[in-house]
Amino acid sequence: MNQSDQTKSDWSVVFCVAEFRLAVVQLQVTRVKADNLSRARRLVKEAADEGSKVVLLPECFNSPYGTSFFPTYAERIPGESTQMLSEAAKESGVYLVGGSIPEEDGGKLYNSCVVFGPDGGMILKHRKIHLFDINIPGKICFQESETLSPGNSLSMFDTPYCKVGVGICYDMRFAELAQLYSRSGCQLLVYPGAFNMTTGPAHWELLQRARALDNQVFVATASPARDETASYVAWGHSTVVNPWGEVISKAGAEETIIYANIDLQHLADVRQQIPITSQRRSDLYSVASVQAGSG
Amino acid sequence: MNQSDQTKSDWSVVFCVAEFRLAVVQLQVTRVKADNLSRARRLVKEAADEGSKVVLLPECFNSPYGTSFFPTYAERIPGESTQMLSEAAKESGVYLVGGSIPEEDGGKLYNSCVVFGPDGGMILKHRKIHLFDINIPGKICFQESETLSPGNSLSMFDTPYCKVGVGICYDMRFAELAQLYSRSGCQLLVYPGAFNMTTGPAHWELLQRARALDNQVFVATASPARDETASYVAWGHSTVVNPWGEVISKAGAEETIIYANIDLQHLADVRQQIPITSQRRSDLYSVASVQAGSG
Repeated sequence: MNQSDQTKSDWSVVFCVAEFRLAVVQLQVTRVKADNLSRARRLVKEAADEGSKVVLLPECFNSPYGTSFFPTYAERIPGESTQMLSEAAKESGVYLVGGSIPEEDGGKLYNSCVVFGPDGGMILKHRKIHLFDINIPGKICFQESETLSPGNSLSMFDTPYCKVGVGICYDMRFAELAQLYSRSGCQLLVYPGAFNMTTGPAHWELLQRARALDNQVFVATASPARDETASYVAWGHSTVVNPWGEVISKAGAEETIIYANIDLQHLADVRQQIPITSQRRSDLYSVASVQAGSG
Repeated sequence: MNQSDQTKSDWSVVFCVAEFRLAVVQLQVTRVKADNLSRARRLVKEAADEGSKVVLLPECFNSPYGTSFFPTYAERIPGESTQMLSEAAKESGVYLVGGSIPEEDGGKLYNSCVVFGPDGGMILKHRKIHLFDINIPGKICFQESETLSPGNSLSMFDTPYCKVGVGICYDMRFAELAQLYSRSGCQLLVYPGAFNMTTGPAHWELLQRARALDNQVFVATASPARDETASYVAWGHSTVVNPWGEVISKAGAEETIIYANIDLQHLADVRQQIPITSQRRSDLYSVASVQAGSG
């Protein structure tokens, strides 16, 4: 960050810290990558025109979700999809959490979320840490590890509004990640994710509300819109939850943009009213980061 | 444990491990301690007669909940209330999680849960680790720390059915406790608790479902029945949640006993289907017990 950026950032902190608008784009993802990219770009612009400062895209927004699709749709980073994200962030002047794309690097594939700043610069890349390997007989069996490799790093970034922690879908089931993010100062956690028609109704909202309430942070998820003809049918229902554990914005199953005011004063109030942040018994237990590896 | 107990225990493990019946007694607590004790004893007996192997009483079951009552109703342990619990456990042949009582020890007061085995022997004492100090303007202000001191230990006990972790009310807001219990092999977490008319509807069920889903364990809470005339009005709604995060038994506001079958095969199935237990990234993060102090 150079001096002029620093000045701009400090100015933003002073005048914008209390509240900002977040948009979640619940994109209808098809098999035509070019269409996915152009529609995503248009919807990011629409969200920015509505005053959003941070925009969140869904997991696997440039490709159908499925192990058979990942090798075909995978790109290097930078590449076609992230180039679009960079341009979209810059033209709209937003922090853009680019959902995720299948990434190819060194002969391996990853499920990767790339974040861009309002100047179009890449801020971070989060590779999904916890691969989605589940088997619920008669309901759903999915093994991301058939084709993907896991990331090995936690991922946080700063904005003039608040610090943000990033996870992808199945990462949300692991409370430790959210605990470490919030202990590190994140006030908003974002999870691009594509839950399905079994785990979606059972756990999607519960996990978000749990992360939000336990850590007294805002939590936002972005799902692809539901496509009943797809091999993997996403639950949809992109959601934003406040630090009291309340759902403050929620999509249905269709393509849409949902908005939420991220009111950091509300967060501060909740933490003062029920001060679990200061009441934790660090003399009895701790949640710790073991390492911050590469990948 | 002597040899004959060991044999009996092993036998139980072999033949009873898959499922057992849990009862939660949602007691109507009054200002008359003797009435609280006698009614609790009668309801424990009733629960045992219905086949329950583990019975759970509410937080502060022998006393109205309130800092002004704690000094008056406090007892040493052993004392009148725990003597009743010991006898009730023995006469009913159950593991009895004795909710909690105000405990006096060395000039200090604690909010303490005492657990008895089917032989009437005391198994453990858990002193509430996290004191309930909250202030939600216009809604509720309560400061347990005005009169109580906190405990300094985690508390788990074995039964022939499964290992059980114990917390009291506000302890439930701290995810780390449940994480440590479940990592230590607990399959059932019990929280005697008295949420109120503000935090009850907002967080009581959400916290239980979060603990259950995140750790893939059973969670049971026992509240006093609601008394609209009390200075502190309990939310009631004692609940049992399964490892899938579903409420499987739930009381209303009145005095009642609720039952749940704790199906450990269901727990094993859930852990196999969504194997977060083995998928945690211990190379990236850890939840650890810092010490096991006294108190």
